[in-house]
Amino acid sequence: MLTFWYEFASTYSYPAAMRIERLAAEAGVAVAWRPLLIGPLFHEQQGLTDSPFNSFPVKGAYMWRDLQRVCDREGLPLVRPSQFPRNGLLAARVAIVGLEDGWTPAFSQAVYQANFVDDLDISDPAVLAPLIAAVGAAPEHVLAAAHSDPVKARLKQHVADARAQGVFGAPSFVTADGELFWGNDRLEQALEWAAHHQSREHA
Amino acid sequence: MLTFWYEFASTYSYPAAMRIERLAAEAGVAVAWRPLLIGPLFHEQQGLTDSPFNSFPVKGAYMWRDLQRVCDREGLPLVRPSQFPRNGLLAARVAIVGLEDGWTPAFSQAVYQANFVDDLDISDPAVLAPLIAAVGAAPEHVLAAAHSDPVKARLKQHVADARAQGVFGAPSFVTADGELFWGNDRLEQALEWAAHHQSREHA
Repeated sequence: MLTFWYEFASTYSYPAAMRIERLAAEAGVAVAWRPLLIGPLFHEQQGLTDSPFNSFPVKGAYMWRDLQRVCDREGLPLVRPSQFPRNGLLAARVAIVGLEDGWTPAFSQAVYQANFVDDLDISDPAVLAPLIAAVGAAPEHVLAAAHSDPVKARLKQHVADARAQGVFGAPSFVTADGELFWGNDRLEQALEWAAHHQSREHA
Repeated sequence: MLTFWYEFASTYSYPAAMRIERLAAEAGVAVAWRPLLIGPLFHEQQGLTDSPFNSFPVKGAYMWRDLQRVCDREGLPLVRPSQFPRNGLLAARVAIVGLEDGWTPAFSQAVYQANFVDDLDISDPAVLAPLIAAVGAAPEHVLAAAHSDPVKARLKQHVADARAQGVFGAPSFVTADGELFWGNDRLEQALEWAAHHQSREHA
């Protein structure tokens, strides 16, 4: 099992979200999708009040170019969003609602498509409603649930759990034995570690 | 041709320096070794006065663990230095002295071994002298040249050139057509880009 910490505003979380299900299936590793908000961790750990890619323009310029190369290699479309970072709070709460019924991966991938390909405002319920419908859930019901106290508390717990696991950026991957891997470019290594650990446990 | 920007204090520059000659030979790409000081860029671009791995302990904790995994995968020994970061100024100047006679790669690898395996103070001329002798150069002569104005100016020019190329961290790799790749984990992609560009030029 691999815990996948992701944030809907996070650029490198986009290719990770698009790749992880296929690669995890090949590796025989189950994925626990765990949306979180990375802003609170950026603020408390590094004193940041904006994306580091905005606060440090030279890093931002590199990131957009590198992300384009990463997406080109994976055959993923990319359109630089007209607003960055977008607020992923509502989408994260919706994604939590979907966990029990198994539509969180498909919904999350659709949100990344909306943000990083279709340049849509993912904080807008009107943008999210058709994405919810497309995975077979009822938008009105799901959006109401997303505003419920248990779901709000669950998202806060995700941030707390991620902090406790040493997370400081997104995407991050944590194996069952607690190994932390940071970044889309560590996904293969994280899965390899998780698969190896499983096979040793079952040996 | 690939420009290899590296800093002797930089942790991920260590595996990059140990891997680059073999991988570049396989790719048919020449490597221009370019030692630099990353501290001035960290300061002016991000306001940092220490390594980000010291300023942000959660990132430091991750980096040391990740570096251990990276080195394990490559079969490289790693001993966490008792002092971090170490001052790489003198070593960088010595490395510049060696460029014309071709011993910069071997000397640089020896400096990384001293810093990240043997836990030696690479700012100490007495530590560097045997490393210079080991590549067949004359320590007394080389150390005197390292303190000369042209070599000091050359290192400053490296920092200015790196800045102009968009460098903000080490190691970084820049292809002849100006593509910037940051991090040991982008070395293979940088070489692939460089080789592809060469073959298109010569086609």
